[in-house]
Amino acid sequence: MKSLTLSSPLDMHLHLRAGSLCETASAVAGTQFAGAVVMPNLVPAIETLPAMDAYAQKITAAAGTAFRPLMTLFLNTQSASDIEEAKANPHFFAMKLYPAGVTTNSENGISNFDAIVPALEAMQALDVPLLIHGESNGFVLEREAEFLPVYRQLAKAFPRLKIVMEHISDARTLALLDEFENLYATVTLHHLLFTLDDLAGGKLNPHLFCKPIVKLPRDREAIRAAVFGGNAKIMFGSDSAPHPRSNKESAAALGGCFTGPVLLPALADLFDRHGALDKLQAFVSDNARRIYHLDVPQKNLTLVNEPSDVPAAFDLPSGEQVIPLFAGTRLPWRIV
Amino acid sequence: MKSLTLSSPLDMHLHLRAGSLCETASAVAGTQFAGAVVMPNLVPAIETLPAMDAYAQKITAAAGTAFRPLMTLFLNTQSASDIEEAKANPHFFAMKLYPAGVTTNSENGISNFDAIVPALEAMQALDVPLLIHGESNGFVLEREAEFLPVYRQLAKAFPRLKIVMEHISDARTLALLDEFENLYATVTLHHLLFTLDDLAGGKLNPHLFCKPIVKLPRDREAIRAAVFGGNAKIMFGSDSAPHPRSNKESAAALGGCFTGPVLLPALADLFDRHGALDKLQAFVSDNARRIYHLDVPQKNLTLVNEPSDVPAAFDLPSGEQVIPLFAGTRLPWRIV
Repeated sequence: MKSLTLSSPLDMHLHLRAGSLCETASAVAGTQFAGAVVMPNLVPAIETLPAMDAYAQKITAAAGTAFRPLMTLFLNTQSASDIEEAKANPHFFAMKLYPAGVTTNSENGISNFDAIVPALEAMQALDVPLLIHGESNGFVLEREAEFLPVYRQLAKAFPRLKIVMEHISDARTLALLDEFENLYATVTLHHLLFTLDDLAGGKLNPHLFCKPIVKLPRDREAIRAAVFGGNAKIMFGSDSAPHPRSNKESAAALGGCFTGPVLLPALADLFDRHGALDKLQAFVSDNARRIYHLDVPQKNLTLVNEPSDVPAAFDLPSGEQVIPLFAGTRLPWRIV
Repeated sequence: MKSLTLSSPLDMHLHLRAGSLCETASAVAGTQFAGAVVMPNLVPAIETLPAMDAYAQKITAAAGTAFRPLMTLFLNTQSASDIEEAKANPHFFAMKLYPAGVTTNSENGISNFDAIVPALEAMQALDVPLLIHGESNGFVLEREAEFLPVYRQLAKAFPRLKIVMEHISDARTLALLDEFENLYATVTLHHLLFTLDDLAGGKLNPHLFCKPIVKLPRDREAIRAAVFGGNAKIMFGSDSAPHPRSNKESAAALGGCFTGPVLLPALADLFDRHGALDKLQAFVSDNARRIYHLDVPQKNLTLVNEPSDVPAAFDLPSGEQVIPLFAGTRLPWRIV
């Protein structure tokens, strides 16, 4: 029987939301990961250190102390001294940039990039990473490609700033990784697994609807080749994002896949089927630890090639449900 | 105030379904159209003349006698003599070909094209049109383009058979219309209005999910140019397809837009905004009457440029609801 022990797996892009969704999603993350980068696009967004500290405490209460939340602030009007103050906070990890209006709760994101230059200069000086949801407001399949000139411009203007292209989904994005030393990327489970065919090729499945949208077969193949080939600048970031079922099975479904409950078993299965199990440790931990010089709790997780059942739903105290990826099905790997 | 009187408008591709959905959708069609081509993909499919006659009577009971249902049979194992018998039936209009598995209730469609050659020969001899849902089983955005070689092969092999490429959605399909005299096309309202951005660019809207899927801006522009330019081989076919709300706002939403209630006002608005109101009569009636030498009831409908409100939902006797296109909004045109 095949097995695999992962040392301190990390999820470098995670949405934990608020309220009882946060309790459920944090507990799920704590069972699998040694830490995770927590996204700040709540309502209101996490923009100040007191709000960030309170959020970190709420997460730790649900996920346990063996899980380190790597907290982010929503980049908006922060000054250079705000960045300096953040850098001194032990929960703080990075700034997250949302262009205005491109995803859930990003209405107050950035539309004037000149206004954030002082913050970016401070971040570069203090080695604070810049995480970016890189999409334009254009046609849904072209948004990431249309954003590439912005990545390019930022990478040139701030050559010592670590810039992370989050949840990359388009084959055209990969070339930039090689071109600029200071550009990095995260890749989700669902962009490794799915194309637009899975979302909308048979029946329409709102639980696979996310931003950026899952794309063409050639995009998935290019991203798989980079990840399974062991590209050292690509880190795992699930972008797992729980929404109540009523917000997904709806006439106006919100973006976000709740992949959290199945991440490590599904990754083990996928990497195994592609003969890349030996690349999983670097993808889910070593690359991030090296890129960021991260100090995270030591936590070993062993996976075995034995079936595990995915719950059909997670019940929230509100009476609502959250539907995970692969709900009600059986995966060929499980966590011991 | 602008107004427009349409003479005997026709919907050359309509789904009326069964049960109380059929009563609702037929009544809606009867208020706007002099006749419509009724699709046969029920469960079980309409494959025999007795089933077809019973279906026509049910439709007439709901739509009124001033509405002519142009009935189709699901092409499957019919012999040449079955075609001959159908041709003599006053309700019968055409045969509909579904490749196996490409859309709702098409599981028993065609996978072996050789088997239908005798039927196609009889249809050609008797001037029975062949209506085709032209999609492959490939990647969702490429299915119509991948089917083009089949259209080409059929058009060559049966040069006197009228072949209709139904609900065309891809710019690449238009070139075939010019190339083969015996190829025709229908175009829906929703493929004139929407792209993938409307379905999945903001929130995900299952009520805009249809087969073929709405495509890229360049596809919509090419189809608009052909229709607004007055291409005489293109007929209006709504492909309106009601589904209960619970089958649309679901984890596995069915394909089909219920555009029926808004068709003529929305077409008048769209053609007006594109300076093509003078092309609407040919698109919604004259082209079909000329191509098919159709004899349909005389029915004049006058539209005026005054607002009309679209119901938020249609209630079915079962207690279920059907959600129309533009539910709960106001259109700038109305039927007098």
